[in-house]
Amino acid sequence: MSKIEIFDSTLRDGAQGETVSFSVEDKLNIARVLDRLGVDYIEAGNPFSNPKDAEFFRRARELGLERSRLVAFGSTRRRNMPVEQDRNCQALLESGVECVAVFGKSSQWQVREVLGTTQEENLRMIYDTVSYLTKAGKRVFFDGEHFFDGYKQNPYYAEQTLRAAQEAGAYRLVLCDTNGGCFPDEIQGIVGEMCKKFPGMIGIHCHDDTGCAVANTLAAVHGGVVHVQGTYIGIGERCGNTNLSTVIADLQLKQGYPCIPADRVREMTQAARQISEICNIHLPHTMAYVGESAFAHKGGMHVDGVMKNSAAFEHISPEAVGNRRQILLSEVAGRAALAAKVQTFLPDLPENAPEVARLVDTLKELEFEGYQFEAAAASFELVVLKQLKRFTPFFQLVLFRIIGEQDQADRHMASAMVKLRVGERYEITADEGDGPVHALDRALRKALEVFYPTLAGVRLIDYKVRVMEAGKATASMVRVLIESSDGRHMWTTVGVSKDIINASMRALVDSMEYKLYQDQQEGLLTDRGEL
Amino acid sequence: MSKIEIFDSTLRDGAQGETVSFSVEDKLNIARVLDRLGVDYIEAGNPFSNPKDAEFFRRARELGLERSRLVAFGSTRRRNMPVEQDRNCQALLESGVECVAVFGKSSQWQVREVLGTTQEENLRMIYDTVSYLTKAGKRVFFDGEHFFDGYKQNPYYAEQTLRAAQEAGAYRLVLCDTNGGCFPDEIQGIVGEMCKKFPGMIGIHCHDDTGCAVANTLAAVHGGVVHVQGTYIGIGERCGNTNLSTVIADLQLKQGYPCIPADRVREMTQAARQISEICNIHLPHTMAYVGESAFAHKGGMHVDGVMKNSAAFEHISPEAVGNRRQILLSEVAGRAALAAKVQTFLPDLPENAPEVARLVDTLKELEFEGYQFEAAAASFELVVLKQLKRFTPFFQLVLFRIIGEQDQADRHMASAMVKLRVGERYEITADEGDGPVHALDRALRKALEVFYPTLAGVRLIDYKVRVMEAGKATASMVRVLIESSDGRHMWTTVGVSKDIINASMRALVDSMEYKLYQDQQEGLLTDRGEL
Repeated sequence: MSKIEIFDSTLRDGAQGETVSFSVEDKLNIARVLDRLGVDYIEAGNPFSNPKDAEFFRRARELGLERSRLVAFGSTRRRNMPVEQDRNCQALLESGVECVAVFGKSSQWQVREVLGTTQEENLRMIYDTVSYLTKAGKRVFFDGEHFFDGYKQNPYYAEQTLRAAQEAGAYRLVLCDTNGGCFPDEIQGIVGEMCKKFPGMIGIHCHDDTGCAVANTLAAVHGGVVHVQGTYIGIGERCGNTNLSTVIADLQLKQGYPCIPADRVREMTQAARQISEICNIHLPHTMAYVGESAFAHKGGMHVDGVMKNSAAFEHISPEAVGNRRQILLSEVAGRAALAAKVQTFLPDLPENAPEVARLVDTLKELEFEGYQFEAAAASFELVVLKQLKRFTPFFQLVLFRIIGEQDQADRHMASAMVKLRVGERYEITADEGDGPVHALDRALRKALEVFYPTLAGVRLIDYKVRVMEAGKATASMVRVLIESSDGRHMWTTVGVSKDIINASMRALVDSMEYKLYQDQQEGLLTDRGEL
Repeated sequence: MSKIEIFDSTLRDGAQGETVSFSVEDKLNIARVLDRLGVDYIEAGNPFSNPKDAEFFRRARELGLERSRLVAFGSTRRRNMPVEQDRNCQALLESGVECVAVFGKSSQWQVREVLGTTQEENLRMIYDTVSYLTKAGKRVFFDGEHFFDGYKQNPYYAEQTLRAAQEAGAYRLVLCDTNGGCFPDEIQGIVGEMCKKFPGMIGIHCHDDTGCAVANTLAAVHGGVVHVQGTYIGIGERCGNTNLSTVIADLQLKQGYPCIPADRVREMTQAARQISEICNIHLPHTMAYVGESAFAHKGGMHVDGVMKNSAAFEHISPEAVGNRRQILLSEVAGRAALAAKVQTFLPDLPENAPEVARLVDTLKELEFEGYQFEAAAASFELVVLKQLKRFTPFFQLVLFRIIGEQDQADRHMASAMVKLRVGERYEITADEGDGPVHALDRALRKALEVFYPTLAGVRLIDYKVRVMEAGKATASMVRVLIESSDGRHMWTTVGVSKDIINASMRALVDSMEYKLYQDQQEGLLTDRGEL
């Protein structure tokens, strides 16, 4: 089977999802994950209409992507305006990236009703825009908006819009099911026709409004497309875009079409979790291949079957996508993988050390409590070091108290008191902040700096909160992720509790402990107290 | 198109979902919702293996179902045992319901590897069980487990298992994609073959492990099945079962196959929300047709298009399934979009009212502070009502204070004190909780319930925290979203502050105000204080 080009639009169409709101930093981080995964194209935003996206493109050079190419997105020129004067087209030219996606209308009805112009002018808008950009050296992806609806109304006109883009030098012609109302059989039929007329150029872009985005995309591949658009975990306007993690696994593992580098398929689950963390949305447990429950077996009969032979109730092996089987019985998984991971920072640990087995148990317990270490490598390292007795505490937290108040005039204040012990010495202090966690962070560091002045250089650069089980609201378990930096290194720590303050404090303490441990390893802790 | 029989397995296969756990009361309530919706069959559980299900069947008479028939589920008899002695078959007989579903293996490989018996004995197990039950007057649905995998290995044997059930008097022969690994084209091909051999008898049962359960089910309908199994909101083992809400809407609204009574289609969204509420799971916002975001429009261009003509970006009308359009306000949206949104709850407001222009400014300021109303329609409504002077406060928050503490033994506690005023009366009270926000929620409602007893029925069902600007960590602005329910409605409110406690309190106060305002509009507030 021939390679299918993967075009991820998490940062552009995904940003249209109802609960999604990206900072520039979020976008840069997601681009890193997608590049690591090896998708071909990352559609990153609209540099004209969105100042945040313009900043993203300015900062994109610092990304140093290895495999993926960034794509800037915009529309065809305005009606009755020379393309040279169209600021949207200018912004695409100046985005600094080689690839651009341009959308234009492929539906005669849309041209009249929504665009309010003539069929001929719409064709000129497409031709002029694509031609202008290709002449400037850009690789242009033409998105035929409402292509399928347009084709059903007037197939000849829909085809003409593609022809205009092709004649202007477009690299790909992407058929869009913009309102998501299509079904696989019609998609496959129409795609098949277009692939005959534009061989090697056709792509597909679907939405999930009939619950068929994945199947529609597969049908398009069977119909001959060379290029597939979607968003990695399916976020997007309304019901979302085609879920690329599902499509890639379906195509590459089950149907034999290469999509991403073979050695990255095993990282698919991790990538899905990283992206959902950055988006601050719950990755649905039931998501095919990469969801927490995708290989979870509950029924007694099923569990028996799986124990006898995993093929009995699993259509592929969970390891193939870096996921794992979950059985609500005793489960022995991941020991070799865990040892390999620990060896990255403790190279002297033998793989079959008995401690590794105990470590598996500890981590399982912590995961059961709600910990997740995939995005918190520093906390993971501390858990391992503590379990293997390779870590001597630098301080002991004796007590803390936070107080938050608000009066009738909406004046509010937060303060924290912290008491800790280093060796035989106690330190008790307090500070205030913009909220209780901020106050706690300041008070904790104020107390610790008395003993460890290097902590003055630590900054918290991100703070994320995730409430885990829906259904219990403010009494649910809370997971806090804290990202810290000392100017040279960045590290992330995690804390879990029913109490957001307690969870935050755990992540804060881990952050300080990790920094002190690193300083110790590098011989930077000249003078330290003994506990 | 001919009527498709709808067979819902929420109470049986749905109960295999990882986070699902039903009480008998839950099951009775879900059966009521499904009956009201008009599905043909409700598969309710296994009276032999599950004591809870046995109790359900004992109590099922009190349901007085109008349209749906209950189905008891069990397996074929054990190997080498007379059916009369098999306690599972006895339990099916004694379940008290007329319809039973019996599963047996349709895969030669499964018969040998998992069942550990001969092909012949497996056929006898099927024949004996179905025959025994039909002779006792039951309507028997035979589920051919692993049918598709079995067919791909040995089509002749797979067909023989159906033949055995047919000859024994089965009413329906259901082809199961048990491990969920199939794709639409193969499903349609195999189903087509079986429909020729067993006309008018074939059904389909799919799982979503390739993200194709809906498309597979539609393909089976096109292949000729008369009977469709699934679960109404798609819950089930691993990635879930076929989502029946999606399939019913696809078939009935878009492809012309009647599935449920025409006048019940408009209740589909409400049914989905009721069932997810009873299951205590979060209904995915993006679920096709019935999700909160299924008709949500965000991009400026799309909003313009929808305003001009809703068919531009909607493949069906949201009202058809009892859902509603949502116009999401983002930086991009303008005055016309805002007016349209306000008119959804204040239909008497003219689009060019001068208040609308001022409202645009207010919302821009709030968005600049970090508010986002797209996921918080209730807070949006309150902002508008307050700005337009259509809202009289129900209470005034005078003061609150929270205290969180943790000692050396990692014991932690959180408490909150709240003082508020209603009319001339003050109420001051306190409570504790799993964290400061939880304590605050409890104390606030404790104080308010003195004046407004209907608040006792309000539950917080989700709590989300988003830290906005990266780079300042715990001193950043925090946005809190709270989703509440009173059993009939769900609403979401938002609060923004640098202080997470303050942001949470704002969202909590909005939630209470919104509930009280709704009660007032519906005439449910008989006695209220004046402020």
